[in-house]
Amino acid sequence: MNRFGIRFSFTTFGESHGKAIGCVVDGVPAGLTIDEHFIQRELDRRKPGQNAFATARKEADSVEILSGTFEGKSTGTPLAMIIYNTNEKSQDYDNIKALFRPGHADFTYWHKYGIRDYRGGGRASARETAVRVAAGAVAKLLLNTLGIRVQSGICSIGTVDADTYDFSYARQSEIYALDKNVEEAQKAAVLEAKAAHDSVGGVVALKIDSLPVGLGEPLYYKLDALLADAMMGINAAKAVEIGAGIQSARLRGSENNDAITKEGFTSNHSGGILGGISNGDDVTMKIYFKPTPSIFIEQSTITTQHDDARIALKGRHDPCVAIRGSVVCEAMAALVIADMLLLNMGRTLEGVRRCYL
Amino acid sequence: MNRFGIRFSFTTFGESHGKAIGCVVDGVPAGLTIDEHFIQRELDRRKPGQNAFATARKEADSVEILSGTFEGKSTGTPLAMIIYNTNEKSQDYDNIKALFRPGHADFTYWHKYGIRDYRGGGRASARETAVRVAAGAVAKLLLNTLGIRVQSGICSIGTVDADTYDFSYARQSEIYALDKNVEEAQKAAVLEAKAAHDSVGGVVALKIDSLPVGLGEPLYYKLDALLADAMMGINAAKAVEIGAGIQSARLRGSENNDAITKEGFTSNHSGGILGGISNGDDVTMKIYFKPTPSIFIEQSTITTQHDDARIALKGRHDPCVAIRGSVVCEAMAALVIADMLLLNMGRTLEGVRRCYL
Amino acid sequence: MNRFGIRFSFTTFGESHGKAIGCVVDGVPAGLTIDEHFIQRELDRRKPGQNAFATARKEADSVEILSGTFEGKSTGTPLAMIIYNTNEKSQDYDNIKALFRPGHADFTYWHKYGIRDYRGGGRASARETAVRVAAGAVAKLLLNTLGIRVQSGICSIGTVDADTYDFSYARQSEIYALDKNVEEAQKAAVLEAKAAHDSVGGVVALKIDSLPVGLGEPLYYKLDALLADAMMGINAAKAVEIGAGIQSARLRGSENNDAITKEGFTSNHSGGILGGISNGDDVTMKIYFKPTPSIFIEQSTITTQHDDARIALKGRHDPCVAIRGSVVCEAMAALVIADMLLLNMGRTLEGVRRCYL
Amino acid sequence: MNRFGIRFSFTTFGESHGKAIGCVVDGVPAGLTIDEHFIQRELDRRKPGQNAFATARKEADSVEILSGTFEGKSTGTPLAMIIYNTNEKSQDYDNIKALFRPGHADFTYWHKYGIRDYRGGGRASARETAVRVAAGAVAKLLLNTLGIRVQSGICSIGTVDADTYDFSYARQSEIYALDKNVEEAQKAAVLEAKAAHDSVGGVVALKIDSLPVGLGEPLYYKLDALLADAMMGINAAKAVEIGAGIQSARLRGSENNDAITKEGFTSNHSGGILGGISNGDDVTMKIYFKPTPSIFIEQSTITTQHDDARIALKGRHDPCVAIRGSVVCEAMAALVIADMLLLNMGRTLEGVRRCYL
Repeated sequence: MNRFGIRFSFTTFGESHGKAIGCVVDGVPAGLTIDEHFIQRELDRRKPGQNAFATARKEADSVEILSGTFEGKSTGTPLAMIIYNTNEKSQDYDNIKALFRPGHADFTYWHKYGIRDYRGGGRASARETAVRVAAGAVAKLLLNTLGIRVQSGICSIGTVDADTYDFSYARQSEIYALDKNVEEAQKAAVLEAKAAHDSVGGVVALKIDSLPVGLGEPLYYKLDALLADAMMGINAAKAVEIGAGIQSARLRGSENNDAITKEGFTSNHSGGILGGISNGDDVTMKIYFKPTPSIFIEQSTITTQHDDARIALKGRHDPCVAIRGSVVCEAMAALVIADMLLLNMGRTLEGVRRCYL
Repeated sequence: MNRFGIRFSFTTFGESHGKAIGCVVDGVPAGLTIDEHFIQRELDRRKPGQNAFATARKEADSVEILSGTFEGKSTGTPLAMIIYNTNEKSQDYDNIKALFRPGHADFTYWHKYGIRDYRGGGRASARETAVRVAAGAVAKLLLNTLGIRVQSGICSIGTVDADTYDFSYARQSEIYALDKNVEEAQKAAVLEAKAAHDSVGGVVALKIDSLPVGLGEPLYYKLDALLADAMMGINAAKAVEIGAGIQSARLRGSENNDAITKEGFTSNHSGGILGGISNGDDVTMKIYFKPTPSIFIEQSTITTQHDDARIALKGRHDPCVAIRGSVVCEAMAALVIADMLLLNMGRTLEGVRRCYL
Repeated sequence: MNRFGIRFSFTTFGESHGKAIGCVVDGVPAGLTIDEHFIQRELDRRKPGQNAFATARKEADSVEILSGTFEGKSTGTPLAMIIYNTNEKSQDYDNIKALFRPGHADFTYWHKYGIRDYRGGGRASARETAVRVAAGAVAKLLLNTLGIRVQSGICSIGTVDADTYDFSYARQSEIYALDKNVEEAQKAAVLEAKAAHDSVGGVVALKIDSLPVGLGEPLYYKLDALLADAMMGINAAKAVEIGAGIQSARLRGSENNDAITKEGFTSNHSGGILGGISNGDDVTMKIYFKPTPSIFIEQSTITTQHDDARIALKGRHDPCVAIRGSVVCEAMAALVIADMLLLNMGRTLEGVRRCYL
Repeated sequence: MNRFGIRFSFTTFGESHGKAIGCVVDGVPAGLTIDEHFIQRELDRRKPGQNAFATARKEADSVEILSGTFEGKSTGTPLAMIIYNTNEKSQDYDNIKALFRPGHADFTYWHKYGIRDYRGGGRASARETAVRVAAGAVAKLLLNTLGIRVQSGICSIGTVDADTYDFSYARQSEIYALDKNVEEAQKAAVLEAKAAHDSVGGVVALKIDSLPVGLGEPLYYKLDALLADAMMGINAAKAVEIGAGIQSARLRGSENNDAITKEGFTSNHSGGILGGISNGDDVTMKIYFKPTPSIFIEQSTITTQHDDARIALKGRHDPCVAIRGSVVCEAMAALVIADMLLLNMGRTLEGVRRCYL
């Protein structure tokens, strides 16, 4: 079940240490300028090995478009993209061949499939998210033509929380920090965890602005439900919150309801979604990431033969997976919106008639 | 887009004040004893008008099975269920015909479809969740034959939080409280909000136990992602958390990882899911509900003609939608698990061969 | 798997001798006038018991709309329809309880599901096609607003073939005959088979005119492929032909290619479809129906206990299932086109931008 | 919409003269030995340039597996395959840049998408069917482990029809002829058409044997309906017939019904499918192919500017597309059966319980 989306969909393939990872993006409207540099730049934002706050693994993550374009434009046919794996150090994983890493999918893949590619987590590796970013970049190209913008950033690392959310600032921050004032403290939290051979959790904030009213297909393909699906499916994501979400559950209706005026909503506790449909306000959400399960501290585990064992991981890992995860959240959000844009097109008879008559 | 699920799926129809609501459950394995009394009892748990903590609306919610069974057993054909609407007081809604209720889907349905059944929220009404409970009851009948159990309860109402989670206790509590010790305080929070013509938010906890290892279809039909989709799609749900979710984001990896031993996992921060696949431990989650948007305090809004207006709701509404929402969460979880059980069946060649040879 | 279609889809339920049959039509654009009389008239065209050429069973086939409309118009929410079964003579089937009727699905349902509702074929009965006609009528209401017309008729019964295809004439013919000149001979063929306690096969021709160019979603949701799917899924259909289909296979390219001129195609061997996409010409097809398997001549069969047996059917059956089948073909074609119309809407960036900007 | 199948599905990408064509096969059960040589051999059977009866184009059609296997076995993750295009002579198509080739999809793609890759038909080229064959080979590997066999061959070329169907003979025939006695006449029909700068139609027969009873998911994912969908979606296919199909429409029920005995069915007019479900007998079908639309005789057409024009094709084309088409039919049939095998696994409670308890 490696496809996401209905009208604007993508299908991914590939393992961490296989030949390549890639995707097929299906449903791209014809006539869209496919800016390969933009796609590559989006990938570069997720790329590891760029600073002390991410894994030291070097992955070129150089994307190649194989189909679906002609003379620089989309043709309405599936757009396939491939990223060849170039920096696989499979030997890093020989020691975990017969062990299940705590917090990883090793245990569940083994029991489900009876076989697993243990090298770097195989299919379960966050490496696969690179192709989500590539697919998301194509979605962003579509959104850009409509002025819709998806932005993200880090609001919390461990217990260090942002007070203000500046998405423009986040773009240039090494850790995608939303709040300049806590950025150094957040960096310190990452480096301390790293120095302790440990990792640390974090929270991503996401904002989608300039959305038209009406996106989302109730009752079982609602905008918020699909965003929750998209975000919770990202490696290490453990909670998803729309608008004031968690805080809303502690409020009264009179406090939480967003009053409506001719100029718009007076507040945005709803996170821009009512009844599963965009209301024209900013869609805001948070995604909570657990700390990277790959740590260098020795842990208890069992072998594939069901014997108790100790495990000490080697290799290079992100001390805080939320940081690069924010770029993946953006990509997934863009993909959700692209799908909703196309699905929403036949919603009224008037719209259908305008298209055909 | 009114279908949910792939192999064990359901499609719903109906509006709050139309003739009927109902569903078609597709993919029920043949030979399952369809206990209509059990289905009705599940509906009765969600039924309004039972005590001071829910809306005073009386809805019989009497379910009738129209197809898919023969001599008390499922036949493998679609099981349709219908609930006729009997207590519609449409006149309660005449005053909101041309107004958008804050916090409701009125505004978005109007803009998306250009037409809306304003009576009781029409399709966007939580009334539709009755059929989710009916469909979920069929899923539970399947789960029961495998010993899998889905349970839920209220952990928070407003700012009153449970300290202990006793799912057995919750079943008999009028507000489905998980913690007997805070139950009265939680009831008081509901009644205070009600007395103030207001409403209050709440949080539902959910537990699924005795699940086999291996449920969930990575990478884009993961168990946690589909549960998030299912829960976020419930009316008024605004956040979904798996396992230690939100807290995990503040922890270090060494604290958050669940060590593995021959006897099982030593903790369950993961909420029973690794890599989107069940690991055999209890699946635990929380769903955060906003306060009911229907309050009797006057609010600012606009008309369908885009003029400023004031709105004062009438009628009968739940002061805390999370309470009855917990029953819906259970139903949706059961439906997700039923789908995952069937999808997981062809995962290995060995399983396929055992089925056919 | 009881759903058909992606954007304009329908899900059906119900058995021949259960309480009711019905469907949920999902994706109807909002604002469409839902003419219930039109829907009922379409059902009446398929209704049995109207003349000597169909089964004498009387089925009221009275359809009721349960949801999805408001003040006579569609609201964009699912439109459910129900037809209660009123004339079930279950005792007609007591003698076949433990027997498999040759040519019927009894044998396969029994082996697949281990249980079957033997009364009238249960779910496998052509009775279910009544709801396809109801759903198809809703699709036709949409097509009508765009001037698209779907018509059908009988071209062959047994070995009596039509020479000319007059779809207007077919509408008023008791056997939906396309050619007035062979109508009597075709009627005679039906009555002769009936008198011999036997049945006879037939062929339906279908024409869809005034289609826009561009319908069909290559490569795996092509217009011709989906039409073939839709038609082959109708009870007793055994072959589907697009355009000159079967004859084309005997021709040379220079004979079969439809030359293109500024005024259009000079011939229509393609049946209006090129590369799986409508080319603006009439879509033409034929559907070949086997003779009704229910005959009154004694036949060899086996029991559910795998013993040899003889079977002599009772009851009332269509001597030529193709006749009423033609109405079902029309309905399915309308449903396919409705789906294609909506799917096609996001095909170009220009179209997307025109919708949103 | 470039995906086919639900549980065992594949998604394809690529244009005739782009960088590569390929596919992602999703749902392959884990533990299946992936024999790359077998996959390549299947591709070689479809490969052009092998004799006088197919196009002289040389395409290496060398397939590379990119993911989804580990140590030679499937892992349950998506299996991606790629075939790089190596022999594109784009200049062959410069003269048709602004012209629509009669019988081709040029006209419809242009009107649908407003842009097209005219080189060799782009996405609409039969070249894409190479990846169907690769995907089908993976499906065959699965079917082989269950003893299920899919075979095909040519029964007619132009007006030269086979009298006997010898599928073993067909495998070694240069034109996949089923009947040795008419093979030379069929070859002559191809060469005569070729010599006349023309092409000729043909008919493929397909047989699937050793199928278990019970495959097919009524009512809208029936085995025959999905086979019809799969076959009609193949380039140049214009009609699909199950069992005695077309002839059945001329028969009486007493002639057409297949009597049932303890030893099995006494005839197989049904083509092994009753009620959309396999009955254990051979599935037999025919697929009717139009003559290749690419001919060298000058034809009338119009330009993309809607002016009348004459077109004279160059390049290398198959004189009879049915021949290589037979290999594609086999592949598509294998893919349908693989999907049905997995979908059928949860059909009974007993089966579900046996899997989990």
